[in-house]
Amino acid sequence: QWMMLDWKPKRPDALTDPFGIGRIVENGMIFRQNFGIRSYEIGADRTASIETLMNHLQETALNHVKTAGLLGDGFGSTPEMCKKNLIWVVTKMQVLVDRYPTWGEVVQVDTWVAASGKNGMRRDWLVRDSMTGEILTRASGVSVMMNKETRRLAKIPDEVRAEIGGYFLDTPPIVEDCNTKLPKLDENTADYIRSGLTPRWSDLDVNQHVNNVKYINWILESAPSPILETHELASMTLEYRRECRRDSVVQSLTSVTGDGVDDLASSGYIECQHLVRLESGAEIVKGRTEWRPKNANRFGSVIQLPAESL
Amino acid sequence: QWMMLDWKPKRPDALTDPFGIGRIVENGMIFRQNFGIRSYEIGADRTASIETLMNHLQETALNHVKTAGLLGDGFGSTPEMCKKNLIWVVTKMQVLVDRYPTWGEVVQVDTWVAASGKNGMRRDWLVRDSMTGEILTRASGVSVMMNKETRRLAKIPDEVRAEIGGYFLDTPPIVEDCNTKLPKLDENTADYIRSGLTPRWSDLDVNQHVNNVKYINWILESAPSPILETHELASMTLEYRRECRRDSVVQSLTSVTGDGVDDLASSGYIECQHLVRLESGAEIVKGRTEWRPKNANRFGSVIQLPAESL
Repeated sequence: QWMMLDWKPKRPDALTDPFGIGRIVENGMIFRQNFGIRSYEIGADRTASIETLMNHLQETALNHVKTAGLLGDGFGSTPEMCKKNLIWVVTKMQVLVDRYPTWGEVVQVDTWVAASGKNGMRRDWLVRDSMTGEILTRASGVSVMMNKETRRLAKIPDEVRAEIGGYFLDTPPIVEDCNTKLPKLDENTADYIRSGLTPRWSDLDVNQHVNNVKYINWILESAPSPILETHELASMTLEYRRECRRDSVVQSLTSVTGDGVDDLASSGYIECQHLVRLESGAEIVKGRTEWRPKNANRFGSVIQLPAESL
Repeated sequence: QWMMLDWKPKRPDALTDPFGIGRIVENGMIFRQNFGIRSYEIGADRTASIETLMNHLQETALNHVKTAGLLGDGFGSTPEMCKKNLIWVVTKMQVLVDRYPTWGEVVQVDTWVAASGKNGMRRDWLVRDSMTGEILTRASGVSVMMNKETRRLAKIPDEVRAEIGGYFLDTPPIVEDCNTKLPKLDENTADYIRSGLTPRWSDLDVNQHVNNVKYINWILESAPSPILETHELASMTLEYRRECRRDSVVQSLTSVTGDGVDDLASSGYIECQHLVRLESGAEIVKGRTEWRPKNANRFGSVIQLPAESL
């Protein structure tokens, strides 16, 4: 079933999306959008930051819903969801990054949706170098419905299923679900803690909540600088537990497994566990990250595509 | 001389910049690039944030230099500047915002350069709604040269003037220079102080410095929430005094002039003075902002274009 994702190089003059708003391809099941990487989307490494990648994923998800004519309220809810006061909440994200693009490169993001259990929706993303077709990033996320007023999770109503079910592809996740339970992290087990972190005005989304994507910055706040300087993020699993509001004060906790930071030169791959929690203790997001040395030979990456998808 | 900026509506199929990298127009003197506003570039108001606008200005400035074939090192220095270890540093920015675009709108940014005194360069920007030509933002910034090693300001060497002088337009600034001295602000004169602010990893640019654009977020950190909630930023003057590094700890100070926050409902326009400084006291950036009530009739704006430029 990967055949439908076959790479066909495009000549620039064959593009039909001059404003970069994206379009539906592959019999209406896949949404595709190109992004030129901008100077302000790259970090100290001169490559796109993980926040930038996550932003592109969010943007394509919303534009997919919009282009399908299913955007009820402006932020991902369908018309039937709006009627019933339902919103999507992301519960899990898994991201594998093979290579970070640099300023001026153009990436092509493909995204599609699938059922996840009885009442969830999975969304997959495949990010490629638009010139060569090289796979840069794969990501998979799961969302469920929540009642906007009661903040309780809800089943997918039949009316909503009628709207979106036709878009569900019957494919396995592009990132295999890592079912390993993320270990419990607290002030006793964490190696690094940053406290007193507060949302900036610019972190808030239209609901005055901290946008999902911003959490990754808080996670990185407690990751030790030597890792950030010598390694790059190769993969990430995030589990979202509760919302963070404008007046929240949070802590970021990180523990480093394996060789750790004392022996960075010899340690190749590093794994970290993360927790962002309210200072009152309630968990906001749990995470696991894997890091590889910068400029590592990516053919030796620990993260491999299953052969049939190459 | 504004004739050259005459607005000509473009049909989407007439666009020649499918990847959004921009192009030189108007006899090679003006660089033009379109930006579709993305979901993650808007804030709690559902409109593009001031940071987004500033990002677009930065991106077009760099792409202008790049497209002219003058990008020596990747971040704005020309080949001759690189040879001499010179970099540009921004000393002043003035921005007037008539209207903030929303998600999905496409803005067209025009930018050009001019001499500023004997050893400075001025860069102007004009941002329009790409569909209607409506002026959204005007901005003007001044840069000077600094030796990368000694961190001392430098004159423009003849070799560099030979590279860039041909691009200088002989036009008045698009934003009239506000020569009013920004008043001194300290812990005694400020109404609001936020201390202990530190750069996030994601605030750093390729030089491991905090990017100019990020300062605006720190300024907004000490602006009182009631203003941010009821008003929008109409204009801004920033004077950059020194660099901020990764390990800097800064304070953000704001004083509100005029009616102030106690009487927001009746007060129309609000003016604030700002200072971001190191906790040691050294000034990083001074600023002045003007705010208008949200949904104010913009024809009644305090900020008016000179008649001849309309």
